[in-house]
Amino acid sequence: MQFISDNAAAAHPKVLEAIAASNRLDAPYDGDEWSRRLDGAFSDLFETDVRAFWVSTGTAANGLALAALCPPYRAILCHRDAHIEVDEAGAPGFFTGGAKLILLDGPGAKVTPAAVAAACDRIRKDVHQVQPAAISITNATEYGLVCHAAEVAALGKLAKERGLALHMDGARLANALATTGENPADVTWRAGVDALSFGFTKNGGLNAEALILFRTELADEIEVRRKRAGHLLSKGRMLATQILAMLDDGLWLENARSANAAAQALAAAAPKRLVYPVEANEIFLKVDAEEAAHLRAEGFDFYEWGPGEIRLVTSWDQQGEAVDKLAAAIAAL
Amino acid sequence: MQFISDNAAAAHPKVLEAIAASNRLDAPYDGDEWSRRLDGAFSDLFETDVRAFWVSTGTAANGLALAALCPPYRAILCHRDAHIEVDEAGAPGFFTGGAKLILLDGPGAKVTPAAVAAACDRIRKDVHQVQPAAISITNATEYGLVCHAAEVAALGKLAKERGLALHMDGARLANALATTGENPADVTWRAGVDALSFGFTKNGGLNAEALILFRTELADEIEVRRKRAGHLLSKGRMLATQILAMLDDGLWLENARSANAAAQALAAAAPKRLVYPVEANEIFLKVDAEEAAHLRAEGFDFYEWGPGEIRLVTSWDQQGEAVDKLAAAIAAL
Amino acid sequence: MQFISDNAAAAHPKVLEAIAASNRLDAPYDGDEWSRRLDGAFSDLFETDVRAFWVSTGTAANGLALAALCPPYRAILCHRDAHIEVDEAGAPGFFTGGAKLILLDGPGAKVTPAAVAAACDRIRKDVHQVQPAAISITNATEYGLVCHAAEVAALGKLAKERGLALHMDGARLANALATTGENPADVTWRAGVDALSFGFTKNGGLNAEALILFRTELADEIEVRRKRAGHLLSKGRMLATQILAMLDDGLWLENARSANAAAQALAAAAPKRLVYPVEANEIFLKVDAEEAAHLRAEGFDFYEWGPGEIRLVTSWDQQGEAVDKLAAAIAAL
Amino acid sequence: MQFISDNAAAAHPKVLEAIAASNRLDAPYDGDEWSRRLDGAFSDLFETDVRAFWVSTGTAANGLALAALCPPYRAILCHRDAHIEVDEAGAPGFFTGGAKLILLDGPGAKVTPAAVAAACDRIRKDVHQVQPAAISITNATEYGLVCHAAEVAALGKLAKERGLALHMDGARLANALATTGENPADVTWRAGVDALSFGFTKNGGLNAEALILFRTELADEIEVRRKRAGHLLSKGRMLATQILAMLDDGLWLENARSANAAAQALAAAAPKRLVYPVEANEIFLKVDAEEAAHLRAEGFDFYEWGPGEIRLVTSWDQQGEAVDKLAAAIAAL
Repeated sequence: MQFISDNAAAAHPKVLEAIAASNRLDAPYDGDEWSRRLDGAFSDLFETDVRAFWVSTGTAANGLALAALCPPYRAILCHRDAHIEVDEAGAPGFFTGGAKLILLDGPGAKVTPAAVAAACDRIRKDVHQVQPAAISITNATEYGLVCHAAEVAALGKLAKERGLALHMDGARLANALATTGENPADVTWRAGVDALSFGFTKNGGLNAEALILFRTELADEIEVRRKRAGHLLSKGRMLATQILAMLDDGLWLENARSANAAAQALAAAAPKRLVYPVEANEIFLKVDAEEAAHLRAEGFDFYEWGPGEIRLVTSWDQQGEAVDKLAAAIAAL
Repeated sequence: MQFISDNAAAAHPKVLEAIAASNRLDAPYDGDEWSRRLDGAFSDLFETDVRAFWVSTGTAANGLALAALCPPYRAILCHRDAHIEVDEAGAPGFFTGGAKLILLDGPGAKVTPAAVAAACDRIRKDVHQVQPAAISITNATEYGLVCHAAEVAALGKLAKERGLALHMDGARLANALATTGENPADVTWRAGVDALSFGFTKNGGLNAEALILFRTELADEIEVRRKRAGHLLSKGRMLATQILAMLDDGLWLENARSANAAAQALAAAAPKRLVYPVEANEIFLKVDAEEAAHLRAEGFDFYEWGPGEIRLVTSWDQQGEAVDKLAAAIAAL
Repeated sequence: MQFISDNAAAAHPKVLEAIAASNRLDAPYDGDEWSRRLDGAFSDLFETDVRAFWVSTGTAANGLALAALCPPYRAILCHRDAHIEVDEAGAPGFFTGGAKLILLDGPGAKVTPAAVAAACDRIRKDVHQVQPAAISITNATEYGLVCHAAEVAALGKLAKERGLALHMDGARLANALATTGENPADVTWRAGVDALSFGFTKNGGLNAEALILFRTELADEIEVRRKRAGHLLSKGRMLATQILAMLDDGLWLENARSANAAAQALAAAAPKRLVYPVEANEIFLKVDAEEAAHLRAEGFDFYEWGPGEIRLVTSWDQQGEAVDKLAAAIAAL
Repeated sequence: MQFISDNAAAAHPKVLEAIAASNRLDAPYDGDEWSRRLDGAFSDLFETDVRAFWVSTGTAANGLALAALCPPYRAILCHRDAHIEVDEAGAPGFFTGGAKLILLDGPGAKVTPAAVAAACDRIRKDVHQVQPAAISITNATEYGLVCHAAEVAALGKLAKERGLALHMDGARLANALATTGENPADVTWRAGVDALSFGFTKNGGLNAEALILFRTELADEIEVRRKRAGHLLSKGRMLATQILAMLDDGLWLENARSANAAAQALAAAAPKRLVYPVEANEIFLKVDAEEAAHLRAEGFDFYEWGPGEIRLVTSWDQQGEAVDKLAAAIAAL
């Protein structure tokens, strides 16, 4: 029973159906009817005119967004535990052509205005030190905490004051919004977000993420950079249709709610073991090596997150038995 | 009736079935059972130990291969009409970090040993001029001509003498092999090819290409570069399974034969209009503007390839009526 | 007797004196009194507000300028024989992060509006082909021809119409202006030039070139890129003072006139051998292998420019005997 | 009276004389007689065959060395306060094409084997995390501490075990060796250093640094990268001759001893205020804002290194009065 990550779960049947339904000759690249609907669909969702680009991975979405927001000779402020720093093989350096990540500390992988301000203030305003150009935050964070609209807005305000762009890695934005019930617009552009990597793959998609530009004037550049990075699929309809299927009837929120509910069930099994509050679909537990071995022996698979800690991630399709069993096993430790 | 490109045709039903059949939780990235079978499947096909990497586009396969074969401060020799020069938005410059393409002339987009040797000889062997590191050829070429094993071997020999690596863009390698009947090994590594972009998308896949390394010592670097470029899908099984479905029972050759047969049917309709011999699934015809308009009026769509020329591309699934109609329409011009 | 290049001639005594005179502690980098005078000195020379940056080589000046004028994913149009293409080891690719050079043909290494327009028109306006962002011209050209203000203005007009920036590699701009007698402003910003690499090293400097920005809003970026490329000398005064010494009392023009006069003396010795008119300080002569050997035997050193051609370059300090001897030797061939 | 940095001091008279003495036509770039002597001169100094390259700045030397030692997709371990991280405008990112710096902590800006090992151990050995390729240390460190041969050797041993290259930024190596009296070979290649940025500018040169390759097989790549970065001066003799003048009769050591002696004089004036032991030519003192203002009022200029701390740097030419006055002023605080 797999709790290692939501990133390898099965895709939702409707996603596969949508792929199958779009499997016919249409204009190549993003000229097909599904791709052409994306801007509108996301403009509706976000209640403003946006430009939306499908890509195959979150790393691509993040890399492209950061390249458009930060020139090669400047820096991106992010949390020390941010996915772009820790788990993307240096993709920001590749996509931007050598920009620097300035790493911030803070509990729960949250970027705070205070941390951003302090980091900026430490940089001499001269030509020898790399000046920041952008902030990148993750929502939900790498530790499964949600960023509320007000928190993002505080960062957005600071970003504006400091002349910084604001990027959100929303690989699990659906899980965050399923928890907060906030409006997608409020936690993004109304809070000052310029570009959003909106994840669908972890949430029931197969290989589809959307890069959403609230600063639509960046669209031409992103379009070229996407092609140049080998991310312009010739049968791009297969990505567009996945995303549309997820947006249809709120499937993206429904799936996120399922994953979150499974996480809550696990959290409830061992409230005292929680390293962080469970606000999305990741659970970090204090579990010693012996206990971890015991859980493994019972057939559960998960990630060891350092000495004495494990990470469990629930998926959109884990509503049933496995969760109950794991909850029981944890409670019984 | 679409004859614009094979790149946007429907995927073969078996490809979709394979995706559906693999739609279950497995190890992420390329740790799943299908991905782990790729090295073996291609080693069998090529009769030698190879390393095989799925990616989503030919541009990605080409860019990654070239980055591993050419450092940023050297050059890649290719034809002036090569896809990497003309149609990939400068991807080689991005993936290599600034390497240069040196453009060769020659009929039919073919790279000849003479052209390579002449280009190399024109370069002063000093620090001021960019020295070549690799040759990249396309098979079938951008004008639909096949490179026979002996032709590739002549380039391979020259490459070895000059200390150059040899890359093959095989976006339509299947079509070439379907025509020549040659052994995949003979036209690649036995002829001196170091890395191959093996196309499946144009030939019935959905979004799957294989980067084949005959120089297996480059595998570690490619693996990192693939991740860094955002091309390591978390549900990578969806790519692996497409490729396996295509390899299974020779579907890749069967599809290519269908596309080639359609091309031959069209070629036979107007032998005197042919700009190039039809050796794969592309047909270039001398058709003036009025004639082209006439064909369009009859419902045929195609690419204007310059004044007085059109390009037709046939797909694996164009076996029937549309081809006959177009052949008749051309014959009747 | 050396006629290989002006790039390795002695520096003018006043340049060395200026370096010695500035050899005292001052603010580091470009904070010293000499560096701070550069903007003013060049603004006077060009009769408009400019920003001026010293660098140590023409390659650095060109690379930095092009990086500011062309993003990594676009292209620079230049002549096939341009120094940036032929003799800078791919520096534009390095400085821009992978931008492409599109090579133009034309006699005398001159870029013409027709060639630019034709090259642009050949590019499909889509995401697959690399769109141009800038034109780079050399004045005097690599074959020693001058670009008159009217010629540059025609390119400048076209550049504006096409949305392209215009860069001038003025490694030998002094020689060009010494010939035409034109106003520096007329042949640069008034003709639409955005950035100029203004050479002093070949003209009597030791290692000093000026990057002149007519689009002063690019200054902050250039300043950072210069540092980042290792071109911000801590004792930058040694570069500034060279340039100021050259500007003082028109030494730069005086030196260029000397070199040009030597070139005219050589040209006059063999008018029928000239491959190009001699308009600056480079002479290309039809001289066969036997004749070339003969000249070498008499102690003259020069560059073989291909079969049956040699290149002679004269320097600011070659006013006397050597030139007369070579002229005589050529006349006597 | 300037104690801000040694980087802007006057050049030694012998350096200027050497430049003047070499001011005559010779082969361009590094073909002249002085440049051709560098390999031999440094091979003598280091008692082994090395390849030596002049460049104009320490940033260039560091950037080129790191680009040859670390591919774009890997990382360089260095101290958080290392010059390459803090004061080179992101040059390593530019020269390497996007490699990452992994920042280590430790007192006095020293890199310790323990810190390196711990940082490496924290990195998962997979494709998602950036794997290290090199260590870069500074000697003397940014806080003026020397690295003894044994310390470097411990790092060299670890580097070898971990498959890492070892780079030394020796901007003030002369000052370190003047203090330790150690053999240049012992603290570099015998201790495992692969490439050394050997500084001369801060120590009496005008704009000359030497990049020393102990792994001589990297020379061809460095040669090309130097040109490509615009660091191949056409009158390169002006750099070579500076370095040779410094090596001649041990001027480099003599100058460093002068600067160090001045530093000791200052250190002796206020032993209790020292933040670090004074081992080279930098003195960090606990001096509060009021005291700092007092020193400034007396005509001394220096760097505020954070609240309550100032940095003084002494130069090769500060042997006399100014040092005595500052020492007295500090003692009198």
